[in-house]
Amino acid sequence: MDKTVGILGGGQLGRMLAAAASLLNIDVVILDSGDHAPAKQILTPRRPETSHVDGSFTDPVKIRELAAKVDVLTVEIEHVEANVLEEVESSLPLGVHPRPSTIRIIQDKFVQKEHLRKAGSPVSEYLPVQPSAESISDVASKLGLPFMLKSRTLAYDGRGNFVIRDLSQVEEALSVLKDRPLYAEKWVPFFKEIAVVVVRSTTGEIVSYPAVETVHKDNICHLVFAPLRSRDPAVQTRARVAAEAAIKTFEGAGVFGVEMFLLSDGTIYLNEIAPRPHNSGHFTIEACETSQYENHLRAILSLPLGSTALKVPSAAMLNIIGASSNYQEILTLSQRALSIQGASVHLYGKSECRKGRKMGHITVVAPSDAELRRRLRPLLEILPGGSPSFETDLYAPIPPAIGYSHSHPLVGIIMGSDSDLPVMLPAARILDSFKIPYELSIVSAHRTPDRMVEYARSAASRGLKVVVAGAGGAAHLPGMVAAMTALPVIGVPVKGSTLDGVDSLHSIVQMPRGIPVATVAINNSTNAGLLAVRILTAGLPELVGTMENYMTKMENEVLAKVDKLEQVGWEVYEVKR
Amino acid sequence: MDKTVGILGGGQLGRMLAAAASLLNIDVVILDSGDHAPAKQILTPRRPETSHVDGSFTDPVKIRELAAKVDVLTVEIEHVEANVLEEVESSLPLGVHPRPSTIRIIQDKFVQKEHLRKAGSPVSEYLPVQPSAESISDVASKLGLPFMLKSRTLAYDGRGNFVIRDLSQVEEALSVLKDRPLYAEKWVPFFKEIAVVVVRSTTGEIVSYPAVETVHKDNICHLVFAPLRSRDPAVQTRARVAAEAAIKTFEGAGVFGVEMFLLSDGTIYLNEIAPRPHNSGHFTIEACETSQYENHLRAILSLPLGSTALKVPSAAMLNIIGASSNYQEILTLSQRALSIQGASVHLYGKSECRKGRKMGHITVVAPSDAELRRRLRPLLEILPGGSPSFETDLYAPIPPAIGYSHSHPLVGIIMGSDSDLPVMLPAARILDSFKIPYELSIVSAHRTPDRMVEYARSAASRGLKVVVAGAGGAAHLPGMVAAMTALPVIGVPVKGSTLDGVDSLHSIVQMPRGIPVATVAINNSTNAGLLAVRILTAGLPELVGTMENYMTKMENEVLAKVDKLEQVGWEVYEVKR
Repeated sequence: MDKTVGILGGGQLGRMLAAAASLLNIDVVILDSGDHAPAKQILTPRRPETSHVDGSFTDPVKIRELAAKVDVLTVEIEHVEANVLEEVESSLPLGVHPRPSTIRIIQDKFVQKEHLRKAGSPVSEYLPVQPSAESISDVASKLGLPFMLKSRTLAYDGRGNFVIRDLSQVEEALSVLKDRPLYAEKWVPFFKEIAVVVVRSTTGEIVSYPAVETVHKDNICHLVFAPLRSRDPAVQTRARVAAEAAIKTFEGAGVFGVEMFLLSDGTIYLNEIAPRPHNSGHFTIEACETSQYENHLRAILSLPLGSTALKVPSAAMLNIIGASSNYQEILTLSQRALSIQGASVHLYGKSECRKGRKMGHITVVAPSDAELRRRLRPLLEILPGGSPSFETDLYAPIPPAIGYSHSHPLVGIIMGSDSDLPVMLPAARILDSFKIPYELSIVSAHRTPDRMVEYARSAASRGLKVVVAGAGGAAHLPGMVAAMTALPVIGVPVKGSTLDGVDSLHSIVQMPRGIPVATVAINNSTNAGLLAVRILTAGLPELVGTMENYMTKMENEVLAKVDKLEQVGWEVYEVKR
Repeated sequence: MDKTVGILGGGQLGRMLAAAASLLNIDVVILDSGDHAPAKQILTPRRPETSHVDGSFTDPVKIRELAAKVDVLTVEIEHVEANVLEEVESSLPLGVHPRPSTIRIIQDKFVQKEHLRKAGSPVSEYLPVQPSAESISDVASKLGLPFMLKSRTLAYDGRGNFVIRDLSQVEEALSVLKDRPLYAEKWVPFFKEIAVVVVRSTTGEIVSYPAVETVHKDNICHLVFAPLRSRDPAVQTRARVAAEAAIKTFEGAGVFGVEMFLLSDGTIYLNEIAPRPHNSGHFTIEACETSQYENHLRAILSLPLGSTALKVPSAAMLNIIGASSNYQEILTLSQRALSIQGASVHLYGKSECRKGRKMGHITVVAPSDAELRRRLRPLLEILPGGSPSFETDLYAPIPPAIGYSHSHPLVGIIMGSDSDLPVMLPAARILDSFKIPYELSIVSAHRTPDRMVEYARSAASRGLKVVVAGAGGAAHLPGMVAAMTALPVIGVPVKGSTLDGVDSLHSIVQMPRGIPVATVAINNSTNAGLLAVRILTAGLPELVGTMENYMTKMENEVLAKVDKLEQVGWEVYEVKR
């Protein structure tokens, strides 16, 4: 792919772009200060003409020097000189991407908000504000307290943001944000922060990556979980649609990071847009069919966009952030990660460690959310600078004691009544023995129909893979749940006081064409648990071996009885019950 | 990870090692001729002391120069000077890996065979031979025709191999292999070529990657399929055990490629060992939790070995091999790959294209074998230099016409008798409509018990995820298959001429504790097909959406009937059957 890409900025995003470029033999020229910026450590220029440029990415002379060497210019940071980019745009064979006009809109957060609001994107309330106590008090009366006072420009990783909780803070806020143009945003009581990475081609084609949950700490991206799980099955799609719609309104190609707030009522507000690969998309390197970095290059070079599909069931990204100048803490965390299954370490080659500096990141992939959090936990326990244990417990909880529901279950065991519990417990025991995370509760089709609907409708989007439902008599629960989820539902006919369970069996098994229930024998929840494990082999192939071991053990138990029968004779053989 | 690794050889393997090193901030110094060897294009030296060395990797002076700059030496090619490596070994803080003694054994294929045979590894018959017609005739009488005449040294990608089919070829063989030390190998009528990449730590810890199928073309690695599928469920484990046992006998750390022959009776012969990352392990970059390249670095630096587990269900690697000096053919194939979902292109940055030269490779990942072959097919159709269509059809067949079994099925539909076919066909129709690859056949528990055992035992290792079994009367098939596979088995009770199908239903559903059968309604194979699709959602999450669409369509059909009933009135409403 004989093209040369120029990148303004030589940090970790440029570094990962360069790594992606190396796979496709794309030459990359970096503009940043010094010879050893993170991005300049990757890819040795193959020709003198493609040597890197030493200088500031805001220096017009250097930008022009870079432009003269490449086919297309792009950015890994939005705080660049849009004017100069506009000036060189027409001289470049493939232009500047995204367009300087887009960068100009995005780099002023107030202008960005205005743009999004006018384009019909959902944004929370915001107001212009002057850097004076009077103007800020005025805004406070309109937006209420607390509210966010934000710098319109040059703000990133929380720098340039100030939360005004009380008007007594105004002086402090003005001194922190001094000399910056400001605006104010209404406080959004978000339930989760979420993000979508969107790719836009030179012809305006738009694709997006799965929506993820982002966790910020001290205003810096701390953790990302992919995909976003939610009780509301529509949130994933709504987030992507909102992000794609917003990016449609900008000019030029490339990857855009769209940060959003998700409220507990399901409302989504766009927070900020980044016109470049985004921290919330680092996980795509290991977890998606095409990484955001490769897709950025494909987009700006008019190559076909790559698939954004996840290739693993669950992924997390943990930023490695300096706590001080002590690089040893970074190495300790990185080395611990080398012992974690599914963890990939990315160190950025930064020359010195500082508090709040992004030194690298760790991506963890896993076959399930539960396993992902289990792998993540030892890393959260040794973050540079330490971390309170409640945070570790929040994002990577210790699995519950036997007898309590897992927070990230793969299987849901439900029953119509607590009287079914003794019959259903063996299913739980089986899942315990196979170390499958599950939840167990009471959901009655007839007595809690709304709860049943909510349970069934949210099962897939919460991350469940199988539902086991037990019911007796006119046993409707398994079939009704199956009617409201796409997941496989296993039905356990519970034997009542009359009809010997045949009533439940026929109620569960004789489903009409279109909605299947996987029915097991009357009162045999052991087999329901085992069937759930077998079903999970489709997603967790290593369970095939575990199930084979279980079957061999069972065979050996019977064979032992064969021996015993031969040894003691059948007249004295005692049958255990 | 402040260590510096020296690599003898600057080709694509060194390039991919350097890319892996960049993630961990490991410095890499390459010894090879010229400034632009593929490996030297990756990673700009961060300090003058870690600049690359220009020279031959067989030049003792240059090897010593490299050794003086690094903590550990390793190789990306085995045709190096073991003597010089031995000489510098003790001066290096972390030594030479693998040990020079290992490289010396492996670089002489006859010595390698002797070593393996004495260590008890399975190798096919071989004999020493002198470069004379007499000696070769003598060997032919002992090994039979055809046999392989091989150069003991400096042989790779088939160079140095000659197949003697007739003694009249001896002169030609001697002129092709002239001046080389030779040996002869008995012809192995292999069923498949397979390979296992093994990692050995400095403390002798051994892990291996899943066994793969390799396909050679003109003696050069052409395709790799991971994981190896087989009717014999034990082959995967046996191949890994044999490969690990062989590597245990060598000294030093690193990755080893173990090439093997699999015979149709299940016999495995070790063919050749490479003391370095291997072409058969390229797929690990995208498809495994840790790549072979990162694991090589971890091994030689005494870091913890990474997980070798596959993180995707199915992967293939296609080498991009030059057909001539025409580089455009390479670009055409690479650009086509950018349009293929799940394909990742690796171009090696080689300065010129030549017939038989490895210019790059393409890894394809997919959620199933069938989808993998579908994605691979358009690439095989445009290989540089062209390719006969029978080869394309062999490795990436066109899906069969409706009514015939898929060659890479996810679901197996079986029935006890051809008389069950009308009842079971709706299951097939459902799978057709969901585009799920399946096979359909007759397997009778009572009339073909051996066939049933073979079918059930091989189901998982062939790549099936679900079995649907229909049977009537004393319906044993579903339960007996479930007893001999770890996969989920769906049972369809077929209604016979007496007892209304209740006999089959009870025979299928009332399984003893330990072996579950997912039973659906009598004669309702539609629901069996739908249940199979739901079960596959555990492995193919995108099916959740497809199943939801199916359910919405069904709902809309009923709602349309609601409207119609209201419009025409129930007295004239005609019920369709």
